[in-house]
Amino acid sequence: MTRDMNPSSAVVLLSGGLDSSTCLFEAVASDFEPLALSFDYGQRHRRELESARLIAADAGVKEHVILPLDLTIFGGSALTDDIEVPKDRSLDEDEVPVTYVPGRNIIFLSCALSFAESRGCSDIFIGVNAIDYSGYPDCRGEFIEAFVKAANLGTQAGSEGREFTIHAPLKSLSKKQIVNRALTLGVDLAKTFSCYDPTESGSACGRCDSCRLRARGFAAAGVVDPALDA
Amino acid sequence: MTRDMNPSSAVVLLSGGLDSSTCLFEAVASDFEPLALSFDYGQRHRRELESARLIAADAGVKEHVILPLDLTIFGGSALTDDIEVPKDRSLDEDEVPVTYVPGRNIIFLSCALSFAESRGCSDIFIGVNAIDYSGYPDCRGEFIEAFVKAANLGTQAGSEGREFTIHAPLKSLSKKQIVNRALTLGVDLAKTFSCYDPTESGSACGRCDSCRLRARGFAAAGVVDPALDA
Repeated sequence: MTRDMNPSSAVVLLSGGLDSSTCLFEAVASDFEPLALSFDYGQRHRRELESARLIAADAGVKEHVILPLDLTIFGGSALTDDIEVPKDRSLDEDEVPVTYVPGRNIIFLSCALSFAESRGCSDIFIGVNAIDYSGYPDCRGEFIEAFVKAANLGTQAGSEGREFTIHAPLKSLSKKQIVNRALTLGVDLAKTFSCYDPTESGSACGRCDSCRLRARGFAAAGVVDPALDA
Repeated sequence: MTRDMNPSSAVVLLSGGLDSSTCLFEAVASDFEPLALSFDYGQRHRRELESARLIAADAGVKEHVILPLDLTIFGGSALTDDIEVPKDRSLDEDEVPVTYVPGRNIIFLSCALSFAESRGCSDIFIGVNAIDYSGYPDCRGEFIEAFVKAANLGTQAGSEGREFTIHAPLKSLSKKQIVNRALTLGVDLAKTFSCYDPTESGSACGRCDSCRLRARGFAAAGVVDPALDA
């Protein structure tokens, strides 16, 4: 079956955090009609999905899929298993932290690929960056490049010459630059949520890697994080 | 976190059909302790999961995960959408048939990778073959090779040198050879189920590509398919 092509649409992976929300607005700024894909994967910080909904609405997403995919069955991460989220950890360590979720981005990209191919579009956006990040191997450019090769060999579209492009517009940006870019693009940062280990009332903990990388970015940009007052 | 290594285990993708069941027994014959992964993905032929359970039990699988992952949300295939399953189609056509599920094997392999990494094992088995098959791009060797490169770059284990191996022991076998191999390995073929479009009572239709490839394999091997009497 040759599916109807839809070259103006792109699938954007959207967690509801600072990076993926900015990435969504980058897709819009590049004149794509965005489809968004989020995952209800049993994450400790499921609260992020509410942010994803709000940001998707702001960006005029025409189809937002929140896919249930229970990664707690596999576990093996502080985000999906009974392992404590590290607090006040040095952000300069080389080791992969326990918040790494085995295979998460390859699963997310594969599902984005299925979504994109089913809707006849060839563009996928992911908000990975490898500058101020937690040291996850599945955020690096080499991984994304290898993935797109597999994607083009293992899909009908790719094997028929309608190749996929994976856009990672934040890949070489620091957190400071991402904050600035988000402000330029008009992302309502008060609606985004980055914490791995929210309190019972749903507030950011302020001490996990993700909170601290975010705080560092806002501080470097000289901007108050509007989510802190939300 | 350095996860406990479990080098004697392997994750086997198991649909419950002839090929994946034979593949599971190949893993056992290669002295791996099998973990099995099946998907409840909204497939029209969900009946195959009962076969997967029976075959996993026969093979002494120590952990069998049946992961719910609703691919009907994306659709785009006769197996997951409101598209008729072709009957009595020529099996020699080059075109990718409408039973192709966008991104299915890359999603399944990615989840197998997550399962394997979480359990500390480095071996994954998949029953793809590209001789007597339906023409799916995600069953070809080039795709599997590209996937494993991405997997090794995008996981903690791979990036720390504990590389994954993806075994596709059926990749160069004809259906006839697969039937013979299954019999040699002691797979109870009466328990396997290959049909894409079962009748309401759960019998194989006999006319979809999968039924006809299976029938051709048994005929070529000179063996009566025991599932037909089951």
